[in-house]
Amino acid sequence: MVGRFVDVRLMRQTKHSFKLFLCGKIGTTKLLDFQFIERLLKQLERALNKPRQILMSKTEIPQMIAGSEFADGAKKILAGAAEMFALKGYAATSVRQIAEAAEMSVPMVYYYFPGKEDVFKALMEVVMNHVETELVRTFPQDGTLRDQLVHVLDFHVRLGMENPKMVAMMMSTMLGPQEGRPEFPMHEQYEDHIQGIAHLFERQKLRPGMKPRFLATQFLGLKNHVMISCTALEDSRIAHYHDEIRENFSPEGIALMVDQFLFGALDPEGQR
Amino acid sequence: MVGRFVDVRLMRQTKHSFKLFLCGKIGTTKLLDFQFIERLLKQLERALNKPRQILMSKTEIPQMIAGSEFADGAKKILAGAAEMFALKGYAATSVRQIAEAAEMSVPMVYYYFPGKEDVFKALMEVVMNHVETELVRTFPQDGTLRDQLVHVLDFHVRLGMENPKMVAMMMSTMLGPQEGRPEFPMHEQYEDHIQGIAHLFERQKLRPGMKPRFLATQFLGLKNHVMISCTALEDSRIAHYHDEIRENFSPEGIALMVDQFLFGALDPEGQR
Repeated sequence: MVGRFVDVRLMRQTKHSFKLFLCGKIGTTKLLDFQFIERLLKQLERALNKPRQILMSKTEIPQMIAGSEFADGAKKILAGAAEMFALKGYAATSVRQIAEAAEMSVPMVYYYFPGKEDVFKALMEVVMNHVETELVRTFPQDGTLRDQLVHVLDFHVRLGMENPKMVAMMMSTMLGPQEGRPEFPMHEQYEDHIQGIAHLFERQKLRPGMKPRFLATQFLGLKNHVMISCTALEDSRIAHYHDEIRENFSPEGIALMVDQFLFGALDPEGQR
Repeated sequence: MVGRFVDVRLMRQTKHSFKLFLCGKIGTTKLLDFQFIERLLKQLERALNKPRQILMSKTEIPQMIAGSEFADGAKKILAGAAEMFALKGYAATSVRQIAEAAEMSVPMVYYYFPGKEDVFKALMEVVMNHVETELVRTFPQDGTLRDQLVHVLDFHVRLGMENPKMVAMMMSTMLGPQEGRPEFPMHEQYEDHIQGIAHLFERQKLRPGMKPRFLATQFLGLKNHVMISCTALEDSRIAHYHDEIRENFSPEGIALMVDQFLFGALDPEGQR
């Protein structure tokens, strides 16, 4: 995350200690206390002269869980489940593994949730609710259509960049075989999104043949595309694409995507 | 597939017999021989006055396997694996199940392939090679950019519409957790596609700021979006979207997508 050759990852071990991995040039693994890591991160930032991207932002899932309305015990379970689902996928994660990741007993997990599917649903609801609330809260109501679409796309890019494993897990679970796939009423939220975006297009003079709902579907397709591309940032086999993806997903890249969507790829002079 | 209330599905039982499901208004299941089904399909078509969509087209996977250069035994294994992977997903399918679907013994499967991952790779290669060959063979070399992009998108829509379960399986496997995910060098083919599409844009006068490679990435994102949407046609929970998806994926819908991509969503008069 910080620079090209240093990959810093924090993994929670217990409530107050973290495991710090410094790979690449440094290449050590140590069990450390939180204050020490804070100091170390500050040093690293200064040394690498890079903005701090490691601490949690509003689009990070542990942050969303912490801010949700679940009881503390349920929050611990959701955080553990998020870690395990992202790591191993939904199908391969057992309730026992969720319990271990949450540092709780299996019966304690069942005290809060009837089963694995319910943990998954609760987790998806936390993410969806948070995304919706934050998106609405920060939405540029008085901006141009371009500003508004840039905002929606940028928000999802940050979500994907900060939770690539989680996004990959959600996508692969939703696309997975019906057998063993958790039920989740994402469809209602999808309809809300379609109508919300369609509403933005209704107020515009559209190219002949273009309809607001059709454009909303295409825009959500673009949104899904950027989120899926974010998951590629976790795949070391295609590390040679990472710089290109990051460039495309910079504020300039996002604005370019929206311009292409609204005004087209071709030069207006050359258009028929 | 044929009309709104009649869903006809053929499932191969053995080499020369098929199981025919007529659901909805008819609602029967019978084990039938091939000639009988041929006659029945012709009657159905005439009765419903619809084009024949049920027999295999060039974008159906069993057809691709049959046309590949593998030995007959390997083809049987690939056909069985395609069925099982689509039904249960890659992770949940065992070599034993592949053998059963192919009506072969487990050692016989291992005679042709070192393991499950190799069956998967061979299957993906069959699909990718066929797609590439067919796409190049039918490509409108002398057409306009619009014709060419419509062709690429339409080809992939048909592929997705005819193999929704398979597409869902490919997507969910590729996005699945790294642990247990098969290695597959799709990335080389991806780079070829990017460069091929970028080449089409190089010959055009582009909107300021737009670059051929950026546009190629966005167009492949659109292609992935339509293929993922096709998988929704397999999901009965969102049956209320199926008509909308089919309309968007009609030849007119595909042309509209390309027009929006090239010329923009907004009316040229209202554009800045």
